[in-house]
Amino acid sequence: MNRAALIEQIRSKKSYLCVGLDTDITKIPTHLLNEADPVFSFNRSIIDATQDLCVSYKINTAFYEARGLKGWESMEKTLAYIPEHIFTIADAKRGDIGNTSTQYAKAFFEALSFDSITVAPYMGEDSVKPFLDIANKWTIVLGLTSNAGSADFQMLTCGEEKLFEQVLRKVSSWGNENNLMFVVGATKADQLQEIRKILHQHFLLIPGVGAQGGSLADVSRYGMNADIGMLVNVSRQIIFASSGLDFAEAARAEAEKIQSEMATYL
Amino acid sequence: MNRAALIEQIRSKKSYLCVGLDTDITKIPTHLLNEADPVFSFNRSIIDATQDLCVSYKINTAFYEARGLKGWESMEKTLAYIPEHIFTIADAKRGDIGNTSTQYAKAFFEALSFDSITVAPYMGEDSVKPFLDIANKWTIVLGLTSNAGSADFQMLTCGEEKLFEQVLRKVSSWGNENNLMFVVGATKADQLQEIRKILHQHFLLIPGVGAQGGSLADVSRYGMNADIGMLVNVSRQIIFASSGLDFAEAARAEAEKIQSEMATYL
Repeated sequence: MNRAALIEQIRSKKSYLCVGLDTDITKIPTHLLNEADPVFSFNRSIIDATQDLCVSYKINTAFYEARGLKGWESMEKTLAYIPEHIFTIADAKRGDIGNTSTQYAKAFFEALSFDSITVAPYMGEDSVKPFLDIANKWTIVLGLTSNAGSADFQMLTCGEEKLFEQVLRKVSSWGNENNLMFVVGATKADQLQEIRKILHQHFLLIPGVGAQGGSLADVSRYGMNADIGMLVNVSRQIIFASSGLDFAEAARAEAEKIQSEMATYL
Repeated sequence: MNRAALIEQIRSKKSYLCVGLDTDITKIPTHLLNEADPVFSFNRSIIDATQDLCVSYKINTAFYEARGLKGWESMEKTLAYIPEHIFTIADAKRGDIGNTSTQYAKAFFEALSFDSITVAPYMGEDSVKPFLDIANKWTIVLGLTSNAGSADFQMLTCGEEKLFEQVLRKVSSWGNENNLMFVVGATKADQLQEIRKILHQHFLLIPGVGAQGGSLADVSRYGMNADIGMLVNVSRQIIFASSGLDFAEAARAEAEKIQSEMATYL
């Protein structure tokens, strides 16, 4: 999916919501455990209930890998079920030396046909480039993450700037606003103003709103650019809104609440 | 596998060789492509041919994920085939916020039963801790990698030290020499002396000898400690030594050459 199509979808749905499918099998409603593929059944219901309210689904690969072969199968089926016009993210946080990153790009852009993948920057340019080299796909590089541990290295002062600022600046020169996005945690909403001085045009993938405490109003105020330029991910608050028979309706109600608020910021 | 057993294996085999199973299906001998699971057949032959010469096998997960479900199955079968006394490494370079890293730990330590996993440090302590929390398993954190891109961020000066030195120092306080190792690229052999001033006791996993140009003599001279304290990984030079019917014998010959050299350093 290209940038124009993504922006058009955001404007027409009045939403920049990404629903995170962090589908932990121990947290899904127990009545689904009798299904052949409980995780896929859960995801299918969530997708049916939220697809008109969000513009993206983010599959957190860890929750699928934790179940081995069966999990990988649930991931394939879930990805295939997501409607074509919705932007898909493999939240996989991969990154390795060049010939290995090329294999990860194959895994998520060919064997699976995600629109995008999240990538860790620590190994530098030749670890990121193989993802950027795939046409019509997006690479989403970790900039400033939403967890407490982001203070350990990302916030270190390296020369004139913090490490995460150096990451944003340097990585942004390896691609462009049509193939590169950045993860910027919502728990640092006040820093978005500074980040927008480095990244004027790029889309930001913003986790940390909801369960992790970030404010949608703040990230929207400080992070938006002329093309909106952001996807706000919410996972647990939506998908685990209820653990009962009404889980899909409850997920829809949460997504609707967030989308309605987003509409006021557009 | 605990530290004592690993050291004992190194001393009895006179080897600190780790064979990297970066099994690219496009590079294996063509006669194997008729087998039900060509990648597993290849790995099985390599394991049969080298298991008395090496102390560890490292499975580079990217090459398996690139083939989707079939690849994941080849990985499971390969892991199950590796003899119990040999140290297994999931070279997966994972790392995410706490609840997600917990899922990755489940994936590689429970669904699959690797002895260890490689982890990227960028997201900090709460992204690494869930791996360290699993008893009798090892976390191998990226310190200084062997690729050109290591210069982009790892070599940045952050305060008094380079970023990778801060990573080694800080991460080493989160675990101990019985559950934590570090990746240090062999192409930087002269830096191993400095690294040993930070990490006296820890095992180092050293990639980059062979195809990437590092010298076994140099890394052994500068990197060894009283307990040897290193695993040197070689992948392509061994497993793709020949693309003919003799691929396993050729792999053994390469492994033997390396093991013989190692014996002289012990």
